[in-house]
Amino acid sequence: MIGVKAVVLSIVAHVLGIAGAVMVLVWCIHFRGGLAWDSSNKSLIFNIHPVLILIGLIIIGGEAIISYKALPLKKEVKKLIHLVLHSIALILGIVGVYAAFKYHNESGIANLYSLHSWLGIGIVVLYGVQWIYGFIVFFYPGGTASVRRESLPWHVLFGLFVYILAIGNAALGFLEKLTFLESSGLAKYGSEAFLVNFTAIVTILFGAFVVLTSLSQPPNEDKYSYFAL
Amino acid sequence: MIGVKAVVLSIVAHVLGIAGAVMVLVWCIHFRGGLAWDSSNKSLIFNIHPVLILIGLIIIGGEAIISYKALPLKKEVKKLIHLVLHSIALILGIVGVYAAFKYHNESGIANLYSLHSWLGIGIVVLYGVQWIYGFIVFFYPGGTASVRRESLPWHVLFGLFVYILAIGNAALGFLEKLTFLESSGLAKYGSEAFLVNFTAIVTILFGAFVVLTSLSQPPNEDKYSYFAL
Repeated sequence: MIGVKAVVLSIVAHVLGIAGAVMVLVWCIHFRGGLAWDSSNKSLIFNIHPVLILIGLIIIGGEAIISYKALPLKKEVKKLIHLVLHSIALILGIVGVYAAFKYHNESGIANLYSLHSWLGIGIVVLYGVQWIYGFIVFFYPGGTASVRRESLPWHVLFGLFVYILAIGNAALGFLEKLTFLESSGLAKYGSEAFLVNFTAIVTILFGAFVVLTSLSQPPNEDKYSYFAL
Repeated sequence: MIGVKAVVLSIVAHVLGIAGAVMVLVWCIHFRGGLAWDSSNKSLIFNIHPVLILIGLIIIGGEAIISYKALPLKKEVKKLIHLVLHSIALILGIVGVYAAFKYHNESGIANLYSLHSWLGIGIVVLYGVQWIYGFIVFFYPGGTASVRRESLPWHVLFGLFVYILAIGNAALGFLEKLTFLESSGLAKYGSEAFLVNFTAIVTILFGAFVVLTSLSQPPNEDKYSYFAL
């Protein structure tokens, strides 16, 4: 555990999260033509994918992680916020993955051949397993005190592992899409290419501050609020 | 710190590291035609890049990290092994980056436009800064006892951050190269595509076991051998 206050680190994370959300919206709406669930312009269906994955799975998922550490609230309240935010993140993530399949299927593009797609499916499954295990052991019906105590470090470690994988896979997705666009003529040093690369870098920095927050000092010194990493 | 013995986790890491090294060599030599520093077939120059980055920066760099935790040796011996392995990793990494520039320059391909290239430069610089700081504070001339004690957790945390970035950037590199090859006609579900994707997955698993080893129980319970994460 590092000797920095969680609240300070979490503020940096919030700012990076807001920046990332704005950047992915500017990219998909301003540069890529907007979002649509049904359209003859199939690219608009694709655009839902980065928006929901970044704002949902990554940013709301990151806020779910840091909420349990950085909020100066009672454990039971923090646990409920942690659970609800992760539920929203997972649902938006699943809809975001579905949008990618819908775009592929309606455009005649192959599914599930790339590393990004393989890792993406794996991450959603692992995130779901982690959510179910957390719900059963820590929320309802709840494990015994010893099961909770022994599960907690593994819940934190496995959760951070899945989250770091999601951050890495977001970077893979930005690179993959930009490579496709550049091979179709998009300027390699143009403003859109820079925006996408910097959105990926802001995403990585957000992820780093989420992980740092989870390793830092909680406001109320509740030593069980997180595993003594 | 997790309650699993470092030696057990480090053995899994060694096996994954050997598998990754064999896989990248099979890819670059069997599927991509081999390695050459000078050749009219510029692809052979490129092939040096993934081989040196994966075997050097990632695998030898990972072994450098776990050597300090998992070897049942005296602290001074482990420190020397840690330093020498990181030196080899960094040198091979720099030569590997240079091979990518050499390939680009001799083939008329643009440099430094992709996320992979930006992160790659950043990682080599951060790895170098970490090496220099570690050398000065922990090796020669060496900081005072209090400087060492306060530096150690940050050395571990920053080192793991740079290492996780390197693992993620290796995945970006595999995906970027495979996307180029597939857009030039390589079969999306063919044996080479599967080999590259599985090499990336083995790399990610290797990185995960390196990080896990660094968080686990050292053989001789030397509590200063690593930061009490």
